[in-house]
Amino acid sequence: MKKILMLTTGGTIASAPSADGLAPRGSSEILSHLGMAPLDMELETKEVLTLDSSNIQPEEWKIIASAIYEGFEGHDGIVVTHGTDTMAYTASMMSFMIKNPPVPVVFTGSQVPISQPLTDGVFNLISAFTMAMSGKRGIFLAFDRKIMLGCRAVKVRTSGFNAFESVNYPPVGVINSSGLNIDDSLLPPCDGEPGLFTDIDTSVFLIKLTPATSPNVIDILIKSGIKGIVIEAFGAGGLQFIRRDYTVALQRAAQEKVPVVVCSQCLYERSDFSVYEVGQKALGSGVMQGYDMTSEAAVTKLMWALGNIPTHEGIREFFGRNIAGEVEISR
Amino acid sequence: MKKILMLTTGGTIASAPSADGLAPRGSSEILSHLGMAPLDMELETKEVLTLDSSNIQPEEWKIIASAIYEGFEGHDGIVVTHGTDTMAYTASMMSFMIKNPPVPVVFTGSQVPISQPLTDGVFNLISAFTMAMSGKRGIFLAFDRKIMLGCRAVKVRTSGFNAFESVNYPPVGVINSSGLNIDDSLLPPCDGEPGLFTDIDTSVFLIKLTPATSPNVIDILIKSGIKGIVIEAFGAGGLQFIRRDYTVALQRAAQEKVPVVVCSQCLYERSDFSVYEVGQKALGSGVMQGYDMTSEAAVTKLMWALGNIPTHEGIREFFGRNIAGEVEISR
Repeated sequence: MKKILMLTTGGTIASAPSADGLAPRGSSEILSHLGMAPLDMELETKEVLTLDSSNIQPEEWKIIASAIYEGFEGHDGIVVTHGTDTMAYTASMMSFMIKNPPVPVVFTGSQVPISQPLTDGVFNLISAFTMAMSGKRGIFLAFDRKIMLGCRAVKVRTSGFNAFESVNYPPVGVINSSGLNIDDSLLPPCDGEPGLFTDIDTSVFLIKLTPATSPNVIDILIKSGIKGIVIEAFGAGGLQFIRRDYTVALQRAAQEKVPVVVCSQCLYERSDFSVYEVGQKALGSGVMQGYDMTSEAAVTKLMWALGNIPTHEGIREFFGRNIAGEVEISR
Repeated sequence: MKKILMLTTGGTIASAPSADGLAPRGSSEILSHLGMAPLDMELETKEVLTLDSSNIQPEEWKIIASAIYEGFEGHDGIVVTHGTDTMAYTASMMSFMIKNPPVPVVFTGSQVPISQPLTDGVFNLISAFTMAMSGKRGIFLAFDRKIMLGCRAVKVRTSGFNAFESVNYPPVGVINSSGLNIDDSLLPPCDGEPGLFTDIDTSVFLIKLTPATSPNVIDILIKSGIKGIVIEAFGAGGLQFIRRDYTVALQRAAQEKVPVVVCSQCLYERSDFSVYEVGQKALGSGVMQGYDMTSEAAVTKLMWALGNIPTHEGIREFFGRNIAGEVEISR
């Protein structure tokens, strides 16, 4: 019988009515409403946090990563329940903090508390348990009948049950009347020794450009102590170079040894910064491409790189590689 | 016969190969490749700009708005060709700068230059002309067989022909084998005198939160001269209040009379800031809700409000109203 560990962190799935509205509770709240058909598993639970996920921040990422890593001992799979609001950030960060997980690690949550009759929490949780028993190594997110790579998930809907999408990468598994169907060809290689690396530098800022955003903001951020910048540019990678000249601002960032990653503010499809003249200039001054990465993955990858890789050149090399399925560099 | 004015601003649709890669050209480049079945219209063209849309900024918004407004005289409809990268921002801003357009104003563009055999530009342009001849008043965007409100359009794909979606509002028209089908019930009321109001304050910054974003950035931005802030919060409107306390930062913004609008970083569905405890506190200190507005609409609406409405209270009142179909306040 598979031994599964459920780590709870709070979130809507574990919420119950309180004097101040819905408040997150622990694993007993979840299990008391599960009422599921018996799964062939031995379940152990551990309450790690009881937070709304809006309050799950870098400090909590380290706690969650450590709890997952400790749980590898003696378990065949781990399920992490989490609020939906920042679950994509946490799942992305775990993909960098935890190297070669030896068992499935499956994040899940719900849009409606598990105490409500029309909750999506029960199905999501059973989906996560089923994936956790699959033996497939990796960091995953189970939601609305889909299993995604944690580093490809994005919350795209505020309230719909289909809140998450696997962006620029197919779901690695789907659940239908034949059960859980995993496409092994979509699973990134994961065969080395497990490792835990929780050092990160959180001084990373995400700039979503508007046509009026002044490139001076880059200087202001660097002066305020920001050590890395992710820019959501326009379309496939466009940014202003008339009047508001990002070419010059990005050169200054390079001089200050502040790495800059450029993604697209379009939710879907690949960015390619080398298409534009300004992009070519910026690449020449050391800007790194986000390619088809989500912003969640780009931000957490940069925080992790700044915390673990001492040289600018090393960080560039790291961003030229696919670590956990988060990016397709060339095609 | 309908008199249609085509204003060109550059963009991929008008691009042709040059020594430096694709470079935007003017209306003759577009018309030479149109090769369309005769439309029952008399076409006049005017080259307003020849820019990649990454370089279309607030200064260009004023030029485009004035050209549209001048074009109302003697024309039954106006088509504006524009690069796709920032077209949603321009179309949103036009929805505020131009009050009660007396004729259809239809933005369009393409993902592939009109000089290429497999361009989407020809169909998009004929769709835009057809909408321009419809007599329906408003600011629209025609792309990939759909007509959207300009203030609801978002570029969601970097390269696909279906680059634009009408977010949180159905397309007002679709093109199929029966022609252009407009759903009049989706057209916002537009029956007053036309007006042109190009004064805006561009000192608006868009913050897309990450779990590590320090609320100090709000103080830093205000100190640097930012006069209005749009925050893309988590999920339906969550933001941190442990350690990184946005409640306090938002109160400081209110004291400084800097209006703050909160939207969601989820692309789809409605935000509701009153669901969360921190949201309720923030609303108490004067934060305005974005509801189901796109970030493009929220940013341009705030710039317009700051340029035209002298009091903080007036701006609050303005954000409690639907101006051009950009928001559904209550439901």
